[in-house]
Amino acid sequence: MKMAEKVFKDPIHGYISVDDRLIWELIQSKEFQRLRRITQLGGTVMAFHGAQHCRFSHSLGVYLVAKRMIERLIKAGAEFSEEERVLTLCAALLHDLGHGPFSHSFEEVLEVSHEVFTARILTEDTQVNRILENFQPGFSQQVKSVIMKAHPNKVVVKIVSSQLDADRLDYLVRDAYYTGTPYGEIDVQRILRTLRVKEGELVFKVSGMHAIEDYLLSRYQMYWQVYLHPVARSFDIIVQGLLKRIRALLQTDYPFKQDMSLFKGLFLEGVPHISVYLKMDDATIYYMAQCLCDEEDAILQDFADRLLNRRLLKEYYYQPDARLQEVLYMIKQNMVKLGFDPDYYYWPDYQFKVPYDYYGPESLGDGIKLLMRDGSVEEITEVSNILSGIVGKPKKDYKLYIPIDAIRNHPDCEEKTAILNLLKSLNRG
Amino acid sequence: MKMAEKVFKDPIHGYISVDDRLIWELIQSKEFQRLRRITQLGGTVMAFHGAQHCRFSHSLGVYLVAKRMIERLIKAGAEFSEEERVLTLCAALLHDLGHGPFSHSFEEVLEVSHEVFTARILTEDTQVNRILENFQPGFSQQVKSVIMKAHPNKVVVKIVSSQLDADRLDYLVRDAYYTGTPYGEIDVQRILRTLRVKEGELVFKVSGMHAIEDYLLSRYQMYWQVYLHPVARSFDIIVQGLLKRIRALLQTDYPFKQDMSLFKGLFLEGVPHISVYLKMDDATIYYMAQCLCDEEDAILQDFADRLLNRRLLKEYYYQPDARLQEVLYMIKQNMVKLGFDPDYYYWPDYQFKVPYDYYGPESLGDGIKLLMRDGSVEEITEVSNILSGIVGKPKKDYKLYIPIDAIRNHPDCEEKTAILNLLKSLNRG
Amino acid sequence: MKMAEKVFKDPIHGYISVDDRLIWELIQSKEFQRLRRITQLGGTVMAFHGAQHCRFSHSLGVYLVAKRMIERLIKAGAEFSEEERVLTLCAALLHDLGHGPFSHSFEEVLEVSHEVFTARILTEDTQVNRILENFQPGFSQQVKSVIMKAHPNKVVVKIVSSQLDADRLDYLVRDAYYTGTPYGEIDVQRILRTLRVKEGELVFKVSGMHAIEDYLLSRYQMYWQVYLHPVARSFDIIVQGLLKRIRALLQTDYPFKQDMSLFKGLFLEGVPHISVYLKMDDATIYYMAQCLCDEEDAILQDFADRLLNRRLLKEYYYQPDARLQEVLYMIKQNMVKLGFDPDYYYWPDYQFKVPYDYYGPESLGDGIKLLMRDGSVEEITEVSNILSGIVGKPKKDYKLYIPIDAIRNHPDCEEKTAILNLLKSLNRG
Amino acid sequence: MKMAEKVFKDPIHGYISVDDRLIWELIQSKEFQRLRRITQLGGTVMAFHGAQHCRFSHSLGVYLVAKRMIERLIKAGAEFSEEERVLTLCAALLHDLGHGPFSHSFEEVLEVSHEVFTARILTEDTQVNRILENFQPGFSQQVKSVIMKAHPNKVVVKIVSSQLDADRLDYLVRDAYYTGTPYGEIDVQRILRTLRVKEGELVFKVSGMHAIEDYLLSRYQMYWQVYLHPVARSFDIIVQGLLKRIRALLQTDYPFKQDMSLFKGLFLEGVPHISVYLKMDDATIYYMAQCLCDEEDAILQDFADRLLNRRLLKEYYYQPDARLQEVLYMIKQNMVKLGFDPDYYYWPDYQFKVPYDYYGPESLGDGIKLLMRDGSVEEITEVSNILSGIVGKPKKDYKLYIPIDAIRNHPDCEEKTAILNLLKSLNRG
Repeated sequence: MKMAEKVFKDPIHGYISVDDRLIWELIQSKEFQRLRRITQLGGTVMAFHGAQHCRFSHSLGVYLVAKRMIERLIKAGAEFSEEERVLTLCAALLHDLGHGPFSHSFEEVLEVSHEVFTARILTEDTQVNRILENFQPGFSQQVKSVIMKAHPNKVVVKIVSSQLDADRLDYLVRDAYYTGTPYGEIDVQRILRTLRVKEGELVFKVSGMHAIEDYLLSRYQMYWQVYLHPVARSFDIIVQGLLKRIRALLQTDYPFKQDMSLFKGLFLEGVPHISVYLKMDDATIYYMAQCLCDEEDAILQDFADRLLNRRLLKEYYYQPDARLQEVLYMIKQNMVKLGFDPDYYYWPDYQFKVPYDYYGPESLGDGIKLLMRDGSVEEITEVSNILSGIVGKPKKDYKLYIPIDAIRNHPDCEEKTAILNLLKSLNRG
Repeated sequence: MKMAEKVFKDPIHGYISVDDRLIWELIQSKEFQRLRRITQLGGTVMAFHGAQHCRFSHSLGVYLVAKRMIERLIKAGAEFSEEERVLTLCAALLHDLGHGPFSHSFEEVLEVSHEVFTARILTEDTQVNRILENFQPGFSQQVKSVIMKAHPNKVVVKIVSSQLDADRLDYLVRDAYYTGTPYGEIDVQRILRTLRVKEGELVFKVSGMHAIEDYLLSRYQMYWQVYLHPVARSFDIIVQGLLKRIRALLQTDYPFKQDMSLFKGLFLEGVPHISVYLKMDDATIYYMAQCLCDEEDAILQDFADRLLNRRLLKEYYYQPDARLQEVLYMIKQNMVKLGFDPDYYYWPDYQFKVPYDYYGPESLGDGIKLLMRDGSVEEITEVSNILSGIVGKPKKDYKLYIPIDAIRNHPDCEEKTAILNLLKSLNRG
Repeated sequence: MKMAEKVFKDPIHGYISVDDRLIWELIQSKEFQRLRRITQLGGTVMAFHGAQHCRFSHSLGVYLVAKRMIERLIKAGAEFSEEERVLTLCAALLHDLGHGPFSHSFEEVLEVSHEVFTARILTEDTQVNRILENFQPGFSQQVKSVIMKAHPNKVVVKIVSSQLDADRLDYLVRDAYYTGTPYGEIDVQRILRTLRVKEGELVFKVSGMHAIEDYLLSRYQMYWQVYLHPVARSFDIIVQGLLKRIRALLQTDYPFKQDMSLFKGLFLEGVPHISVYLKMDDATIYYMAQCLCDEEDAILQDFADRLLNRRLLKEYYYQPDARLQEVLYMIKQNMVKLGFDPDYYYWPDYQFKVPYDYYGPESLGDGIKLLMRDGSVEEITEVSNILSGIVGKPKKDYKLYIPIDAIRNHPDCEEKTAILNLLKSLNRG
Repeated sequence: MKMAEKVFKDPIHGYISVDDRLIWELIQSKEFQRLRRITQLGGTVMAFHGAQHCRFSHSLGVYLVAKRMIERLIKAGAEFSEEERVLTLCAALLHDLGHGPFSHSFEEVLEVSHEVFTARILTEDTQVNRILENFQPGFSQQVKSVIMKAHPNKVVVKIVSSQLDADRLDYLVRDAYYTGTPYGEIDVQRILRTLRVKEGELVFKVSGMHAIEDYLLSRYQMYWQVYLHPVARSFDIIVQGLLKRIRALLQTDYPFKQDMSLFKGLFLEGVPHISVYLKMDDATIYYMAQCLCDEEDAILQDFADRLLNRRLLKEYYYQPDARLQEVLYMIKQNMVKLGFDPDYYYWPDYQFKVPYDYYGPESLGDGIKLLMRDGSVEEITEVSNILSGIVGKPKKDYKLYIPIDAIRNHPDCEEKTAILNLLKSLNRG
């Protein structure tokens, strides 16, 4: 059902307009408003202070890009029913609903991906669920199936999630804007112009290939420059360490001074209730960190303080050869002797990224398809000279994170000297 | 003491570099890191979702602009001792230290301006105080006196706060960038180029007059378009309403389910201890709102829910004539009959702004001084055609904020109909 | 007739798309391609080296803004026939067809406004005329009547030329971009959103008032900062001086070494033939200046060299009081004694501008109309606080341009000393 | 010799300031002012109408980037004498002095590179030469030796021309801005920050590697998207065709109606005199094209008209296999039969580009050197994963340019049909 157009002013897209009543109601829902309190980039803000934007803004942006994609496809003659249109817009708007605090660090501790929570929020007892079902019984399941990539309409699914989807076309540009880096400048308008449907599949006219190359290379640069920035990763580790410690203490009946009922619901009662999960946002973690600074447990208190005051662990790069495995082991041993619990203070870390890999773990089923001048369809690396040179060429990073500040502050002793010397020998050149 | 240059990537200024060890240490302090959790624009983010930037970013920006101002002045031959330079930079960096949650809404409830808290953080038992005193005994008092505009060096004071200071030159541009509005585009570089010291006073060469006009007009537009946006104001009112209700309930020993010790420290113990105040940030308020949704008190619960889920009060514009005062009174009476407590649900509001007024309440002592070609100094409205036309021409806005959603949801009755009709007659055309 | 969409990449609007075959053919015409060789801002490029953009780019931009205006109006329910749509687009695209070299300086010498030449190009023997008539007999007259503001459809006329038209919405932003000044940043999208037709008249919803204020203030700033820059004016004077000298010499049968037939056609044969006029572009003037450097006539040669090598006259500001009229007169007398012909080397100049004046010479009939919330229509200065303060407040500039370089290079003598002293006394303070 | 700072407003760099009197005088010289009349990108403006910027703007930009590079190097402890500083700035400013009309198309006809003319302008009878020699006898030779890469100081040479020099850091960003494409967004500030001198060689700290990768990939994209755009190339061919025809006709004493003395000086008198060459700029070619439209010779007239009115040749892509060589040959034969002179109307064209190849023809001696964390120096492709994947992977383009408009307008006949069918078989898919 249409309503009078309403608009949101947006730094990336100018204005985001809404004229479907359903979309408007979803935006007003509790679960969607909660995304105002989940930063888009988690720990990255500790490396790029400007990047304080939230999932709420991004989700509106994905909705808009999806809307423009559909308009382009319809203009180019593709068939799109009204129901498919609304379904795509809902899935685009709601795809990030299940993110926890600081977006990704939460997932690693809970060992549940945010998509699972998105699906639960869509289908369990929530305002979003009621709005969708009120629109059309069974609609929440349909939105879920699009987000989970199970829906039979491949075009709808791919607009929402694929190697070149509305999600990425929003976040690359948005994250570049908010971090202040130039890497995410891509010609979104041009990419959208080349969008077509060919035999039930989303394809891009070959005339847009250079813009897509640029997009894939920008994505790669954003990964290494922004998303995987060592400081961002360090903050994620701090969040994980704090949550791990809370869970461990709860499991051993540690006498907290604070009211920990929320975290009990999260960690001690099997699968957490959706209402417990929804209370988890960035504010909850920051506030709890403030309270937990007053607890006795030294590790708990240390991690709470580190999180609040950006006292991060420090990264040391290394090459994963046999000699260095030995060095790492010796660092760990010496840290234990100094009294550092390696479960919390010793984090080997490994990052891996390919610029574009349609068989890799990053890919969503398959690659970007180009519509050639003669009507045939080709995967982009078959055509692009620059991409064929880099496809499947992973870049890897091995790092060890440790609390070098605490080690340096430790009174001088043999172990401390040993650690400092061992760290020097990690030097990756 | 100088150190190897460190840089922050910033979307506004490109890179913000630090090479004074003192500045670096202040940035690492708890009290400065806390500014990451205070949004710059408070309720404005509810009107401009992109504006989630924080006081931390802004403060770094003010430091940078002040640094550039000093460099310019030195290049133009002004005398600036090393101590004055460092003092100015510290005051620029730390001037916002005392802001409470959502920046301004907190001040109105506490009835204490944030500058008072800035002064206390500088001089009481804090990390910032220890760093400043460690640099030079008495230095914290000096920084305070600059921020409080009591320092004898007028140039130093005016770089930090005046009609055209480092503070405003950062925030206008930054707020425009994050809200996505074009109003704040000003030629900062050009303004800085014209900066001079003349007889111990900060002046601007007349060749930069147009850029300054542009800055003053941009400021005016930002006020009406962004800072005083009715939605921003409505959110501020919600925050104030919630805090007022908490205070009222604490004062009557209401049996809270939650641990309210932090708010007791804030509201019940006279002047709050600085450590209590420092625990107040946006996260604290958001988290408390989440908890307070579970309390019994209907007003408390309602405001907590409104704050979290952006269920704002609605504004109605009116002209403050006698007839409308009567209409307002009748609206209030009918609302009381429907059970709305006017202390929380009836907020007449009044905004007032002049584009530039050097005698007005906004001004800081005096106006912007131009250095004329013949060496004389003139206040800018004496010279600028466009400014002389608007100086002292206030724009005023009268609005009534009420919970129209709740009124509409009320079962139909005579009072409800009366209210809805009265609102129509407020219509200002 | 529609065709497959073609696009132009444009730095201001992203992409400019064309899908009317008529528009496409007009763009390919000789007379439109000629606009590639007419710079948009004439002498301004001598003050802002980046501003080398041409009327061709601007005209495409005006076409696009007009297209968006029409789309907005149709979306808001206004009636627009297909013929009116195409007519508006043609008039928008072609409105600058008659500009001569360096846009405005040419007009002053010929004493014919560029609109007259636009009308002639539309209706005489040209490719543009044939394309329009081929589309529909009589269509060239219709396009002319829109551009000349004689067409009965006031909405169509006002889209193309009024206080807030497609022309200005393109050029303010474009000129700001190319000069590198921030003054032209206006929220075009927002202004377009508020566009409506009310009783056959173009109006703007009052909710867009601040964006329009910003536009009017930006326009004012662009005038004083860019368009009326003293260096820009000086270059215009050089162009005029050169053309005046060519005309004077042609009228006295001066024996040119160069082939001057083109200029004979321009100056000696009454109203010039349209084919002669169309050969006049920036390149023609630059090339002729190169040739004329080799002529014997000292004034001719000097102006040709000044034009080519940016050896401009220098401006001296003054107040137009009785004493200074006397000073000017004495400067002139002394220059004559030194051998400077005052017709070429003595140019008092006067600029005058109001920020927005709906009765003034700048205005096109009448002011910007706001559609108020109660459905009434008000002229914007009746509503806008900031504009009412400045309406009708002209800013005036009086300047004398003289060849100070040549005067300084003159051997010392009494008259030279007198001139230099008199100039000092002009000092405007 | 220093002077009071003067500034140029620049859309790319904000302000370009000059405080060396020598630099200021060079900018005022005839030969430098001439660069205002040479567009930076030649035929590219026919594909990207916004790209009308000139060599004058770019040269100021290169001067500024070089100045910043030197400031960075000095800040990082490198030794730079005052003379080396001024020498570098002069070479940066003047390196493009020898460009002919439309920058590159002229070189191919004259078969002399623009560097040769730059060297001549520096050392023959010109204003620039006099200014340099007046500064210091022999200085013009020194500037020449830097531009010709013969100067012994490798750091000075490499700032002016190398794989990552001031020239490219300006033009990539500038060309992206003026064309409106996003490809040239690179983090110049970051690259400059990592600049160092190591053992007499210019190196970049490895921490800046990603920004350099981004620069090299942007460069590659700009080549294919902008510089080698088929329309740009087509315009270059038109310019060449016109010049070739003029030369051919002059050599056969064709009776021109126009005064062709300038082109006689260019083509018939051996090495052209420098004063003749300096008269060649874009305006000269445009004006001559206008005149030559009136000559009898059909080819001459046709090319003049094509140049003026953007009636370009059309490109057909092909793969260079044996079969297609045969097809090309048959196209040519049929065109001859239709009366098209293949010297002017049949242009096979071949473009070749590697993203970064330090042994290739693009490279200037050697590659970009990274300063590693352990103090060693490595060529960037040894370290960068993404570059090693693409180094030496050329992209090639084979195109045939022909006047398809004229062929289509030819009366139907066997040969015409044959050509149209043969073109279809070129189709590369």
